[in-house]
Amino acid sequence: MSELLEFGKKILKNQPFSALLGTELEVIEPGTAVLSLAIRPDLRQQHGFVHGGVVSYLADNALTYAGGSVLGDSVTSEYKINYLRPAIGDKLAAKATVLSSGRNQAVCQCTVIANGDAGERTVAVAQGTINKVDR
Amino acid sequence: MSELLEFGKKILKNQPFSALLGTELEVIEPGTAVLSLAIRPDLRQQHGFVHGGVVSYLADNALTYAGGSVLGDSVTSEYKINYLRPAIGDKLAAKATVLSSGRNQAVCQCTVIANGDAGERTVAVAQGTINKVDR
Amino acid sequence: MSELLEFGKKILKNQPFSALLGTELEVIEPGTAVLSLAIRPDLRQQHGFVHGGVVSYLADNALTYAGGSVLGDSVTSEYKINYLRPAIGDKLAAKATVLSSGRNQAVCQCTVIANGDAGERTVAVAQGTINKVDR
Amino acid sequence: MSELLEFGKKILKNQPFSALLGTELEVIEPGTAVLSLAIRPDLRQQHGFVHGGVVSYLADNALTYAGGSVLGDSVTSEYKINYLRPAIGDKLAAKATVLSSGRNQAVCQCTVIANGDAGERTVAVAQGTINKVDR
Repeated sequence: MSELLEFGKKILKNQPFSALLGTELEVIEPGTAVLSLAIRPDLRQQHGFVHGGVVSYLADNALTYAGGSVLGDSVTSEYKINYLRPAIGDKLAAKATVLSSGRNQAVCQCTVIANGDAGERTVAVAQGTINKVDR
Repeated sequence: MSELLEFGKKILKNQPFSALLGTELEVIEPGTAVLSLAIRPDLRQQHGFVHGGVVSYLADNALTYAGGSVLGDSVTSEYKINYLRPAIGDKLAAKATVLSSGRNQAVCQCTVIANGDAGERTVAVAQGTINKVDR
Repeated sequence: MSELLEFGKKILKNQPFSALLGTELEVIEPGTAVLSLAIRPDLRQQHGFVHGGVVSYLADNALTYAGGSVLGDSVTSEYKINYLRPAIGDKLAAKATVLSSGRNQAVCQCTVIANGDAGERTVAVAQGTINKVDR
Repeated sequence: MSELLEFGKKILKNQPFSALLGTELEVIEPGTAVLSLAIRPDLRQQHGFVHGGVVSYLADNALTYAGGSVLGDSVTSEYKINYLRPAIGDKLAAKATVLSSGRNQAVCQCTVIANGDAGERTVAVAQGTINKVDR
């Protein structure tokens, strides 16, 4: 396990909300990050799909991790998400990549994929700005 | 309690993820909706602030409720959120309003406010599109 | 005429693209800006409405002016726009306001209004991030 | 020249604003479109870069063309754009692709590239929703 992955996993463990949702950091390398979570009944909305808020949370967090992989300690300043289809299945994964970065800011895109019996389907795409945390 | 509020509360109760987070529907009237939740330790990120994913979730859900108040059964198709400052305090509330609506679609804006000892502070603003669910 | 308005008008005059479109700076005060242009036939698309690109341009520029009114020399880093209805009439005006600002960054919203025989109608709403230009 | 390209070029010719800016439709195939324009002095802002409004216009129009390639007569309902770096050079091109589409709606992404002596550089990325025009 790389030092960056180990460090990223430690931060995730320190996010109580990520622990509540069961999020795992699968990949973090300079310019990219993959977060995933197991789809549980308590993450759903009234129609049985994963709640949009869970999809957004995972995209947002993956964007921050991707940006953070090149900037260091970072926060998402803003993002936009389009939901493409209902999220169903066993597992949700968000893969984010850095499109452009400077000293203090990175622009990233993210794809959220649901995995299950029906195969792998893209359920959302997001684009946002990550800012380095000022000290 | 109006019929619309009663109906909205029932839908919220049927969203397991909203139950997990403890979300309450405070207001729903044609063109506007307010959702809130108590800030609990397990909704935080590593710096002690409410996780951005919780703020996004609440904004997204408030946008859907506002859109749904004029369209009926609806989903958020897309939205954009800007985080303005860290969310701290006791309570988070998202107030969404419909700016424009047609037969199948509504455009809404949302303000997310954190309440606590430090008073009331706007922590995020969002804008998005709500679509009526096709039957 | 305030110094800020005079300065803002001078910058606009130095934007060849704004001169091409005939944009006027109507208002600029700390935290707000209004830009407008006369709707001419050559600003239209194939259905006779003002081209979305013109509406976007005016929103983007108004966002920058609003942000610049509190930050100084600035650029739009990103924004999102929802078109609400076709833009027709004699005049288009974009009014932008600062929602939140720090040392280097401001978050602004903008409403674009079309004026004509049919009265005044909101045709688009935008939200974005303005960044101070680093020297 | 394909029928779709011929048709697309005809529509572009009927957009007076696109004629004013000198936009060309380079490619249109089901699911993708490329629009370009020559960078002229009158498309610039006060620092000598292409005005953001021109970049936005081209992205917006490319998104509509990509969506239209699968939906037929369409409009951009909303989009979000991040500017990555100043646009300089001789030519600006926006390449848009459809990520997902249904009967009435498509979600598309777009990359805007500037070409010049300094080579080819991505200057902006956009993501938006295209809606079929109701008849």
